[in-house]
Amino acid sequence: MTYETLAAALHDAIVQNDQAAWPALVAELNPADMSDVLGQIEQPEQVIGVLQVMSLDKRADTFGYLPMALQQAVAERLSPGDLAELVTAMSADERADLFNELDDNIRYALFKRLAREEREDLRRLASYEEGTAGAIMTSDYAVVQSGMTVARALESLRRTAPDKETIYQAFIVDDDHRLLGAVSLRQLIVATPNVRVDDLMAREVVSATTDTAQEEVARLISRYDLLALPIVNGGEKLVGIVTYDDAMDVAEAEATEDMHKGATVGKLDTSLRAASPYALYRSRVHWLVILVFANIFTGAGIAYFEDTIAAHLALLFFMPLLVASAGNAGAQSATLMVRGIATGDVTGSDWAKLFFKDILVASALGLTMSAAVLMVGFFRAGIDIAMVVALTMIIVVLVGSLIGMALPFILNKLNFDPATASTPLITTIADVSGVLIYFGIATAVLGL
Amino acid sequence: MTYETLAAALHDAIVQNDQAAWPALVAELNPADMSDVLGQIEQPEQVIGVLQVMSLDKRADTFGYLPMALQQAVAERLSPGDLAELVTAMSADERADLFNELDDNIRYALFKRLAREEREDLRRLASYEEGTAGAIMTSDYAVVQSGMTVARALESLRRTAPDKETIYQAFIVDDDHRLLGAVSLRQLIVATPNVRVDDLMAREVVSATTDTAQEEVARLISRYDLLALPIVNGGEKLVGIVTYDDAMDVAEAEATEDMHKGATVGKLDTSLRAASPYALYRSRVHWLVILVFANIFTGAGIAYFEDTIAAHLALLFFMPLLVASAGNAGAQSATLMVRGIATGDVTGSDWAKLFFKDILVASALGLTMSAAVLMVGFFRAGIDIAMVVALTMIIVVLVGSLIGMALPFILNKLNFDPATASTPLITTIADVSGVLIYFGIATAVLGL
Repeated sequence: MTYETLAAALHDAIVQNDQAAWPALVAELNPADMSDVLGQIEQPEQVIGVLQVMSLDKRADTFGYLPMALQQAVAERLSPGDLAELVTAMSADERADLFNELDDNIRYALFKRLAREEREDLRRLASYEEGTAGAIMTSDYAVVQSGMTVARALESLRRTAPDKETIYQAFIVDDDHRLLGAVSLRQLIVATPNVRVDDLMAREVVSATTDTAQEEVARLISRYDLLALPIVNGGEKLVGIVTYDDAMDVAEAEATEDMHKGATVGKLDTSLRAASPYALYRSRVHWLVILVFANIFTGAGIAYFEDTIAAHLALLFFMPLLVASAGNAGAQSATLMVRGIATGDVTGSDWAKLFFKDILVASALGLTMSAAVLMVGFFRAGIDIAMVVALTMIIVVLVGSLIGMALPFILNKLNFDPATASTPLITTIADVSGVLIYFGIATAVLGL
Repeated sequence: MTYETLAAALHDAIVQNDQAAWPALVAELNPADMSDVLGQIEQPEQVIGVLQVMSLDKRADTFGYLPMALQQAVAERLSPGDLAELVTAMSADERADLFNELDDNIRYALFKRLAREEREDLRRLASYEEGTAGAIMTSDYAVVQSGMTVARALESLRRTAPDKETIYQAFIVDDDHRLLGAVSLRQLIVATPNVRVDDLMAREVVSATTDTAQEEVARLISRYDLLALPIVNGGEKLVGIVTYDDAMDVAEAEATEDMHKGATVGKLDTSLRAASPYALYRSRVHWLVILVFANIFTGAGIAYFEDTIAAHLALLFFMPLLVASAGNAGAQSATLMVRGIATGDVTGSDWAKLFFKDILVASALGLTMSAAVLMVGFFRAGIDIAMVVALTMIIVVLVGSLIGMALPFILNKLNFDPATASTPLITTIADVSGVLIYFGIATAVLGL
């Protein structure tokens, strides 16, 4: 049976409350797949019922994959004892995420029942600001004490393996827990047993601090193909790791956020499917209203040239395509630039080179499009207006493109998010400029 | 010294041809960082000089990170013997990528010098279509024969480790190389040595076939937090793996491609920084010209209502903001939908639910924006036109939003890329609809 069939069967068995069928299906399914099925179940009681059939490890894994709102609902309904057991089996980073979302009284009841070590770990992890390395790291990392032999390091990793997020990358620390180096399990099992790990380890370890932005963490992991990135505190002491799977989730969420921003959709805390209509409304209304008022300038620009327009109503025919072309070229430049900055492809020092390249490209684009509209203009409105339209096209495409290119750069320099240079914002600025340039040229050339 | 300082020092040493400084800097720097420095060097001869001071492994790693055009330039200038040595040390997937780009005569000369095993592997990997699992997989995966004990499996992994992309995930195959299960190195080192791997392995292994799309491969790896995804051929035989680091690269490239598409920028084979002006022109001109002609419909719509406009020039003032609002709301809906489909958050069965949610959200947005323009309209143009503008706003925001929501879905159903529903395309469709709705309502209400 494919996982889709199994998932559908589990879904049906839950909806029909066919509890006898649960254990067999649960045993076959993956935590990620089960969390999908459970996420569609409206009743937290039924979710708890299914979770209870799983082994503790699988339960903790599946629970960790559930949407946060459902995790909260389940946590509220479990007895403090059951919740403590579940939470203890979760990975440290997911535990801290949940903990931050719980009501104070549940948090307190849970806290009392946790072992001292978990309690302190939770307090520490929960204290980091959202969006930083500290908030996504886990404290279940593998360490090897400096001075150990390979054989002892392997023995230590083997013993502690069940509690660690990964043992494929271990970090060597001194007595003060300062990060000295890193060694992979691959290196260890290939090495001679009596060699010291210090002679084996990589000393130039890529690391981040607890307040490094999470997108930077994801970028480092992707750039250096890391399994785990060590996170140190201000005193260079190792306090956690971020693993590649969490980096993948961060990279996906950041790309989604940037894409949404590119169309003026604000941050959604949940998926599109799970988002409430109100949350969607809130994420969208902000910029739409701002842009309505911004567009009044375009209207005012048109009103300013009312005499020209009244004298040459044929000019209106070409307005949408000129203004839209400026916006479209600007959207292209802005999107190339925003994504280039986000992936680290474009840095500050590239500015001048990219600027000249964009002028070259935009001029060529403007000429091509100008040729296209010249013919349309000639057949529709005669040579005079055709010349105005063709000339305007070259200028507005160039201007639109340069605005699109420059705005993300300027925002970035001013420490704003370059992704704020969204397509609708660029289009609006291009609209205003386009109208002014078009009717300005028309007024001059047609002599009004 | 930070890596930025080291990278800058290496860059200077190359530019000044200070060859004595190269070995020390090369020893300290990471392959990923060095490839960045080398990517900025214009002369392939100098790149070759720096590569030559590295150990073979580091040279192969660094070379694999270089932009493809530079890899080609270097490959063309190396002797067949040096190239064969370098290529043999590369990972199998990167080797196949380069091989596909080489000139026939270089390819032939290289082919002759490779060992038989590498030759066959290369021929096989190079035969898969770009964008599929086959094209990004590597054949350097770790296998364990069914029936082996844990101790023997560990010994076999240890022995073959240097040649494998990863040994943290090993796959169990039968005598015909059919995939039976998977076992992690973590499981193996924790297990009792004389247990058989068959009793330990996971039997329900997530896998893909050679023709699975690369974005689906990346999605599976991210969804199930895999280190490596096994790739099987038509006969269920294991032929390769895709590792998490390649999946991260694919996910980033796919997100970039989707973002670019969202602003009608076509596929770029290289980064923005490295792209030639002509490549950028080509990637942008296509849709810009299409949209120029599409915008003629908007112009025609305006021309059709010339009498209404001539009688009420004040209507023009509101046209940009109404039309832009439709486009902006449409861009939001389309972007939410395109990204939702790409991340697997939205599937076909969600259509109806999302449709009704979007109607609800768009109506609320339309009402809000309608209230905003009602006042502007009243003070600027009197109650009649204000009513027309307010009514138009509700309708165009709703229509724009529904077009934005429906188009990606329809494209997806018809097996086109939903990302083709770009913001400029949606804006153009919304422009035409907006003009027709606005002047249509105006003509009806103002009684012309």
